[in-house]
Amino acid sequence: MSDTASFLAACRAALGEPHVLTSAADMAPFLTDWRDRFTGKALAVLRPASVGQVAAVVRACAQWQVPLVPQGGNTGLVLGSIPDAAGTAVVLSLARLNAIRRLDPVNRTVTVDAGCILQHIQEAAAAAGCLFPLSLAAEGSCTIGGNLSTNAGGTAVLRYGNTRELCLGLEVVTPQGEIWSGLRGLRKDNTGYDLRDLYIGAEGTLGIITGAVLKLYPQPKACITALAALPSPAHALQLLTLMQDHCGASLTGFELMSQFCLELVAKHYPQLPRPFATPYAQYVLLELSSSQSEAHAIELLESSIGAALEGDIIEDAVVASSVAQSDGLWQLREHIPLAQAAAGKNIKHDISLPISCIADFIAVTDQQLAEAFPGSQMVCFGHLGDGNLHYNVAPPDGMRDRDFLGNQEAINRVVHDSVDAFGGSISAEHGIGALKKADLAHYKSALELQLMRAVKQALDPLGIMNPGKIL
Amino acid sequence: MSDTASFLAACRAALGEPHVLTSAADMAPFLTDWRDRFTGKALAVLRPASVGQVAAVVRACAQWQVPLVPQGGNTGLVLGSIPDAAGTAVVLSLARLNAIRRLDPVNRTVTVDAGCILQHIQEAAAAAGCLFPLSLAAEGSCTIGGNLSTNAGGTAVLRYGNTRELCLGLEVVTPQGEIWSGLRGLRKDNTGYDLRDLYIGAEGTLGIITGAVLKLYPQPKACITALAALPSPAHALQLLTLMQDHCGASLTGFELMSQFCLELVAKHYPQLPRPFATPYAQYVLLELSSSQSEAHAIELLESSIGAALEGDIIEDAVVASSVAQSDGLWQLREHIPLAQAAAGKNIKHDISLPISCIADFIAVTDQQLAEAFPGSQMVCFGHLGDGNLHYNVAPPDGMRDRDFLGNQEAINRVVHDSVDAFGGSISAEHGIGALKKADLAHYKSALELQLMRAVKQALDPLGIMNPGKIL
Repeated sequence: MSDTASFLAACRAALGEPHVLTSAADMAPFLTDWRDRFTGKALAVLRPASVGQVAAVVRACAQWQVPLVPQGGNTGLVLGSIPDAAGTAVVLSLARLNAIRRLDPVNRTVTVDAGCILQHIQEAAAAAGCLFPLSLAAEGSCTIGGNLSTNAGGTAVLRYGNTRELCLGLEVVTPQGEIWSGLRGLRKDNTGYDLRDLYIGAEGTLGIITGAVLKLYPQPKACITALAALPSPAHALQLLTLMQDHCGASLTGFELMSQFCLELVAKHYPQLPRPFATPYAQYVLLELSSSQSEAHAIELLESSIGAALEGDIIEDAVVASSVAQSDGLWQLREHIPLAQAAAGKNIKHDISLPISCIADFIAVTDQQLAEAFPGSQMVCFGHLGDGNLHYNVAPPDGMRDRDFLGNQEAINRVVHDSVDAFGGSISAEHGIGALKKADLAHYKSALELQLMRAVKQALDPLGIMNPGKIL
Repeated sequence: MSDTASFLAACRAALGEPHVLTSAADMAPFLTDWRDRFTGKALAVLRPASVGQVAAVVRACAQWQVPLVPQGGNTGLVLGSIPDAAGTAVVLSLARLNAIRRLDPVNRTVTVDAGCILQHIQEAAAAAGCLFPLSLAAEGSCTIGGNLSTNAGGTAVLRYGNTRELCLGLEVVTPQGEIWSGLRGLRKDNTGYDLRDLYIGAEGTLGIITGAVLKLYPQPKACITALAALPSPAHALQLLTLMQDHCGASLTGFELMSQFCLELVAKHYPQLPRPFATPYAQYVLLELSSSQSEAHAIELLESSIGAALEGDIIEDAVVASSVAQSDGLWQLREHIPLAQAAAGKNIKHDISLPISCIADFIAVTDQQLAEAFPGSQMVCFGHLGDGNLHYNVAPPDGMRDRDFLGNQEAINRVVHDSVDAFGGSISAEHGIGALKKADLAHYKSALELQLMRAVKQALDPLGIMNPGKIL
């Protein structure tokens, strides 16, 4: 037998014939990324059903030096979960490892397989009277293993942190095919190096996350939103400080949206609410969660908003009078990316900044782009409370998409140079994958890259784990 | 010149003569640990005043292969910040790097030198209307560099997390004497491996933390405490669930104390309050922080305590009627270690467990110790909300300290075996240092130790960074 045939025979022996996919049709769904920008090639798609089977096929990969690409829900945005065009790698899908192993309501933890769909974990938590706060657009399809491997962000970071902060313990299959059982459900554990956080966010390049112990929180009694109108991003920063001082940890959402964003939504989704009769320059969607009651949430939100009006920080505001009305306001925010897609192509940036720099960053970068690419339209919104902007650039009215996308690299460079100058990050919540690998090499210091390579070399000396991603 | 003389000459050239201490008298304060259990020997104590000077002396250490022991406030409890008896190492004191570099109230961050005293950082935050929540007994002497290197815990972990969760960015001098500038003040940053969390908790064995960006929080308007009396630790777990459901993130303290602990305090500190006329088996000190007002904190605490009384979870309770009265209740908790010291020797364990296992752990371990060492007295208290117990064992009445301490290893083994059986940690918040190195090797899996050694070898191939600690 050839090496390839021997390797595939070993995989079939470990997983059973039906779970080693090799036909083009069977493999297709695993080879193209979520946004349909790239299709890779693979030797096979492996679908283990247990941690032991994951370890067995990784040992086969190590033995035959076959590169492997771990994949969860394949909803990533940076080409991190699909193989390159060489056709020498296998995709290792974790989708069949999808058991919720154990929920402990007193310890407020849930132990899960890596292939669990995020929404299923949210539902299991809710059924036990708890909250698993990680929430993002792809939650019906993405898996927790992918969330952990990319340290996913989402809409609840302001209060609950990124996926990293929601994880207490991990189970990982090493590049040598050994199983590290680090499934500890402990809030405090100072026994040596923090291997957990090394695997989190490593995008499958250091090992394969197969299970995790996640933190749960008490379910808030009510989440109530308000929409505030203000003259500028600088006012939004003042509002953030005021709201945090008044509400502390009860402030669970703080999303900035420009008038241009809401116009886009109104144009493409006319059925959605229009909270204000006259336009303002900027808006902030606020969310308050109360452990006490809906009435308490509304009262605290109204009194804080009142203080902001008195202090001339905001110009107008609507406070939702119920949970249902709150959902309506969230829909305005959630429809921005959809309205953008309906409007045509745009160039997206997932960036973060020190919160105090955001107003200056927007002013400076808007102007640089207006000068370099006259007529470009900035679709700027995002998780202001986390310093995370989706700073997207749409073409001038009338310009053809193809002509505009020809400027993509030059526009990225303007935006990312500005991010770098303000001490920000070129990837706030999506990761690096293959898409931003060159950017990482450009913006990180030589020393930081060298430290990362030393870690990679130490843990994956054969370089078989998701090659071509991050480094 | 001899190698040693050449090395010391290089250090003097880098730091200036007065900051390279070599006399026994000058070095003495740096060589004995906080609890006065061990005195090491050193070639010299180096006192750099800048990051550049730290890098310069680390380069000298690398060139002459001189081991170095980084030291902050030297308040550690596991012999992590003092050298061994060989006399071949230098102590590198960070105490002169003590500037608060920048406080950004809008980003809610403070950038500090590693040698800043924790209390000075708390004070700087308070002066800006913010809270730096890390708080622990040694806060007037310990440095933030040491807190980060040991991932210190303390009394605010329930709400704000360990030191790890309070840090956004680091500056580190590598074992090669290079400076990694990772002082990012970002809530979201997914650009490659998490080097920050690798250095945090590494006890100076991978590099020297010289600066950090720390998270600040809004100052609560009031913190109010209550003391609840209950029949057992199992009832305390029920109370924790109830309080979290009622109060969410406003619950900022949840400390368990047994009747034996309060008796010790009453005996040695008769001037402190005695909240109950009759004794109960267990007590929980609760702290509630409100972003609204003192009245809101008291009202929410009273209504939650009321629900616990109605549900027969607790037998009695006092709620402080003011911040001053709250401080009095905290003093009961804080005087337990002092009362223990006044009572004589005891054997301390800094352990953590899944919170849901704590009642069973206490019952099982108490009984095992009672059988193996009849008459031993358990002084069990701690941060129950974090699963962290200070499970200390005092001698039977009348036994001489020396006879009792002869059982130390055997008692440690009983306690730590029980911790291990319940999935807990043998070091919750103090770290490993030299003291628990053998325990770590005993309780960690061979694979986890091997992964840690691979990381150590990758980053410190000469093995000069705090040798003999952790691994």
